[in-house]
Amino acid sequence: MDQKAFQDYYPDELSHCYGCGRHNEHGLQLKSYWVGEETVAIFHPKPYHMAIPGYVYGGLIASLVDCHGTGTASAAAYRKEGREMGTAPPLRFMTASLQVDFLRPTPMGVPLEVRGRIEEVKGRKVVVSATVSAGGEVCARGKVVAVQMPEHLMPKAELA
Amino acid sequence: MDQKAFQDYYPDELSHCYGCGRHNEHGLQLKSYWVGEETVAIFHPKPYHMAIPGYVYGGLIASLVDCHGTGTASAAAYRKEGREMGTAPPLRFMTASLQVDFLRPTPMGVPLEVRGRIEEVKGRKVVVSATVSAGGEVCARGKVVAVQMPEHLMPKAELA
Repeated sequence: MDQKAFQDYYPDELSHCYGCGRHNEHGLQLKSYWVGEETVAIFHPKPYHMAIPGYVYGGLIASLVDCHGTGTASAAAYRKEGREMGTAPPLRFMTASLQVDFLRPTPMGVPLEVRGRIEEVKGRKVVVSATVSAGGEVCARGKVVAVQMPEHLMPKAELA
Repeated sequence: MDQKAFQDYYPDELSHCYGCGRHNEHGLQLKSYWVGEETVAIFHPKPYHMAIPGYVYGGLIASLVDCHGTGTASAAAYRKEGREMGTAPPLRFMTASLQVDFLRPTPMGVPLEVRGRIEEVKGRKVVVSATVSAGGEVCARGKVVAVQMPEHLMPKAELA
């Protein structure tokens, strides 16, 4: 994609997350983008991300919904304030609650599309609904209630 | 613990799960046990399982709730049938829905205790509620609706 991913706008000290941090070499390094009013991330599961042979592990799907949700929340909050992503002070979100309904087993061997829709932006809270699809078929639906990270949890820049 | 973990009773061909399969060398290899009427798993996050420095990544917590939930569901179903775990035919569960509420940031550097309680066993469905605690403090609460894996998804033994 031509755009820069939401997660690549996070400051260095907020880019260690296992799910989406570009500085976490062991992690999933999820990348999320705007597509019109919705947001999209494409993820290629590794063969070991399996539940049973042929199918993707549910915890991975929950992790994709989670990090795509907080990334979408950040992008939505910047958009609402009319600010460019990445401008200070950073608007970084954490998950207050996560819900995932597994509609059908998610097949291995195809890229997964995580699609987010912003349901609500209110004060420090953003609600994002999401689908996870494989080969054009929705395999899971999720919802993330994300809240802006409080100041006292924000790591100092020199930790990065 | 003296007991054998629930997951170590799973047949070989159902032991590849990233979250709890003993044959997944890349995975979390979660181990769950009975403690009276409840079930417990202890997990030691790796340093890279972080969200931000000092705190555990939410997707890991969701994954622990998920696999502890399906493991507890299996144990509960065997118990209800009055059968020893591991006896054929296997009672293996998959997740229909997963809910996690993150009550406070989960600190790194201490073992996490995942505790499950069986809320309902009805037909092929088991509902499990769970808490995830660090240093004796509950950091997350979850619920798993688990359903018994249908026959057509069960891998054949020779795949193991």
